[in-house]
Formats: sequence, C-alpha cells, structure tokens
Amino acid sequence: MPNLTTIAFDGDDTLWHNETVFSMTEERITTLLADHMEPAELSKRLLATETANLRLYGYGAKSFILSMIETAIEVTDGRVSTEHLKEILDVGKEMLDHPVELLEGVEECVKTLADDGRYRLLVITKGDLFHQESKVARSGLAELFWKVEIVVEKDVATYRRIMTAHGIDPTEFAMVGNSLRSDVIPVLQIGATAVHVPYPLVWAHEHVDPTTVAELRWHEVGSLAAVPALLDELRR
Amino acid sequence: MPNLTTIAFDGDDTLWHNETVFSMTEERITTLLADHMEPAELSKRLLATETANLRLYGYGAKSFILSMIETAIEVTDGRVSTEHLKEILDVGKEMLDHPVELLEGVEECVKTLADDGRYRLLVITKGDLFHQESKVARSGLAELFWKVEIVVEKDVATYRRIMTAHGIDPTEFAMVGNSLRSDVIPVLQIGATAVHVPYPLVWAHEHVDPTTVAELRWHEVGSLAAVPALLDELRR
Repeated sequence: MPNLTTIAFDGDDTLWHNETVFSMTEERITTLLADHMEPAELSKRLLATETANLRLYGYGAKSFILSMIETAIEVTDGRVSTEHLKEILDVGKEMLDHPVELLEGVEECVKTLADDGRYRLLVITKGDLFHQESKVARSGLAELFWKVEIVVEKDVATYRRIMTAHGIDPTEFAMVGNSLRSDVIPVLQIGATAVHVPYPLVWAHEHVDPTTVAELRWHEVGSLAAVPALLDELRR
Repeated sequence: MPNLTTIAFDGDDTLWHNETVFSMTEERITTLLADHMEPAELSKRLLATETANLRLYGYGAKSFILSMIETAIEVTDGRVSTEHLKEILDVGKEMLDHPVELLEGVEECVKTLADDGRYRLLVITKGDLFHQESKVARSGLAELFWKVEIVVEKDVATYRRIMTAHGIDPTEFAMVGNSLRSDVIPVLQIGATAVHVPYPLVWAHEHVDPTTVAELRWHEVGSLAAVPALLDELRR
C-alpha cells in the first residue's frame, strides 16, 4: 500500500464548477446567433475553431471568447451584427466574473485533509493563469493548500517537473480530478495514485479513447466527500 | 557586498522584444480603423479599455486582442465592419505567432552566466502563461535556466513567494529587467539587488511616478551584455 503524503486536486470541475459555466455561456451565445445557424451546428463549428486555435491560444476562458467571436463572424459570412459581437464580449466577461461555486463535498474534504495533518495539499490546474489564480483566491480554500500549480498542459512531463520541483516521491502522491486524460492517465504513468471523480459534463477536447485506459487501474469516487475515507483505506 | 548566487531575468523587453511587437500590432490596427478615428486618439481609448479590463482579463496578448475588439466596436458606435474585426483577430494571431527575437547581448549574457557555474538562473515574467511558456521555449535559452516563473503580478508578495518556494535568500538574489515598477521597486523592497535595463518603449501601464523611486538605489546597464561584468564587480 502506498504511503500517501501529498494529495493534489484538479481545479475546474473537481473543486469548482467550470464546464457548466462554459456551456451556459455557449448556450447563451448559440441562442443569440440562432437566426444564423442551428445551435448544435454552431457548437460543432466552435469546437473546430477552438481546436484549431489551441496551438496559439492555449486553454481557458479568454481563448474561448476569442474563438467564439471568430466563429460568429465565420459562420455568418460576416453578417453577424456588432451588437451581437459586443454581447459575446459581455457574456465572456460575465463568465470570467462568475462566482466560484464549489462542488459538493469539496469544502469538507479539503478541510478534513488539511486538519488531518498527515497530508500536504496541492492544486494542479490547467488554463489561464490569471483566471485560475482568481478562482483559487475566490474559492475560500487558498490557505489550506501547500502549493498551487497552474500549468499549460497536464502530461507526464508536467507531473514529473512538479514532483522534482517540490521533492515529491510519486509513490507518495495522489491526484484527484475529473479528467481521465489530464488527472488519471499521466499520473498513473509516473507511478503515482489517481482518484477519478467524474463530472456530468466533459469538454469534448478531454474525451479519451477507451482503449487507451484498457490496461490501467485507478480509484473512482462519486464526489470529493468520499476521498478522505478512500485515503484512510489506502493507508491500511 | 552581496554574495549573489541567483540571477533572475524578466522576459518581455528584457530577454526578447515584446513592446515593439505589441506596438507594431497596435499601429496596424489603428491604421485599419483610421477612417473611424485618429490613430493617437484610438490608442488612448484602447489603453482606457485595457486598464478597465485588467481586473477581469489580466495582462497578455489575448487580453490585448479582446480589448482591441471591444474598443473598435465602441469607438465606431458599432459601425466597424466584421471584415475589420476579423482582421484584428488575424493580426492578433500573428502577434502570438511572432518569432521570439532576443535583445542585443542576451544570448551571450545568459550563456556566460550559465557557464560560469556560480549562478542559478531564473526567468520571472508576467502575463499569459501559455504565451510566455511558448516564448521561453522558442527563445532557445530554456535549458540554461534553473527555473521559469510565470506570474500574474510582479510585486513584493510574488517575489517573497518565489524566494520561499525555491529557498533563495534575498541578499543573494538579483533581478534583471526593464521595468522599474515590476523588476526594480519590489525587488529592492525585499532586500535584493536590482539591475535595470531600459527598453526604448514602455507600456503606459508600467510608467512610475519618479517620486516613488526618489530614495531607492539600483544598478543600471545599457544592455544585458554589461551584466556579467557588473556581477563580477559586485562580488569584489
């Protein structure tokens, strides 16, 4: 059994709601542009633009807003009104300013583990530095974390770099998160423990081919409320 | 004399050109919109929008592009064409994709200090995580740095956090950068050494009131080429 000393949490859709905010925003915008294009089709076009722009923009809310504006101009052949484009900007700002809503069980889980005294807690999250730091600060949990790592991509190289930077032994490290692609697969690949907490919505970009995880083993919990007991069990 | 062991460099306009790329981009866009508003006036309005958006967007190229689109819609009362808005997006992408051009003396300075063996070298830079990491990677210097810190704001709290995270004694630390506001004042306030390398262009947001530095002392060099000799001198 691993002697877990260091527990890291993903931010978006693990500690706080994110994909619901994005998809609510996307819905408002696709409704706004419904005269030009059917919402489902527009969402598909948006995803294509976002994917094409990933190389230059990276992840995050500002990238999403920029891709939304580009898509709106493109799919309407330039006939979208500037009022609508202004509204996309405004809806984007509301998204950035959206209150940080913790998921069920998060506050209790993080406080329990922090009080326990046996664990060092981290946040390891991907996306826009400014927006993510703002979310950590507004979560009300910031002071319970030992380190906050905001990274461009959560892959094997990134996890290895974090292990080295903070002197963490992978066998003592567990990652808790909602994404198989970012929080489970690379974590298992460095020999650490992964705890998957599914979130009802998954951004299309985060979907994984089931065959890639066919040989892997990880822990699955329904919410963060179940994590302290899981960790206790793993210590036995 | 301080025993300097750890030398950090700012990124934008210290290691590589940045403000010239931004201002070239801004010039292309203000020219594009010259039918609607005089370029100098438009630049003023853009700065006002950027400053108002700082709380939500933070620094960086994507924030700049979003503020530019908002300004273009606003100053034309919505009469800007979607072709022009599309062009703003395109110009913004070119900016993000712009080759990383090192300033004079940078490569030699960083290599000399890395080869010297007595120094640990860092990059401490502000702005968009994704874009800054991409610039570090494309600079060709990445492997010479011990650590790269991309931060939201370069203030006393940030520098203190970096000192603690990496076990750096401020008396052994020197920061080299082009901004009095970000690279000199807070660095002196934590008791470290600051080396200012002026860059011809200063983003309006970085201007400081001369009275705030009236009592301070720092080192000034014309380019990074002068830094190794300065450090040698400081060791004596």
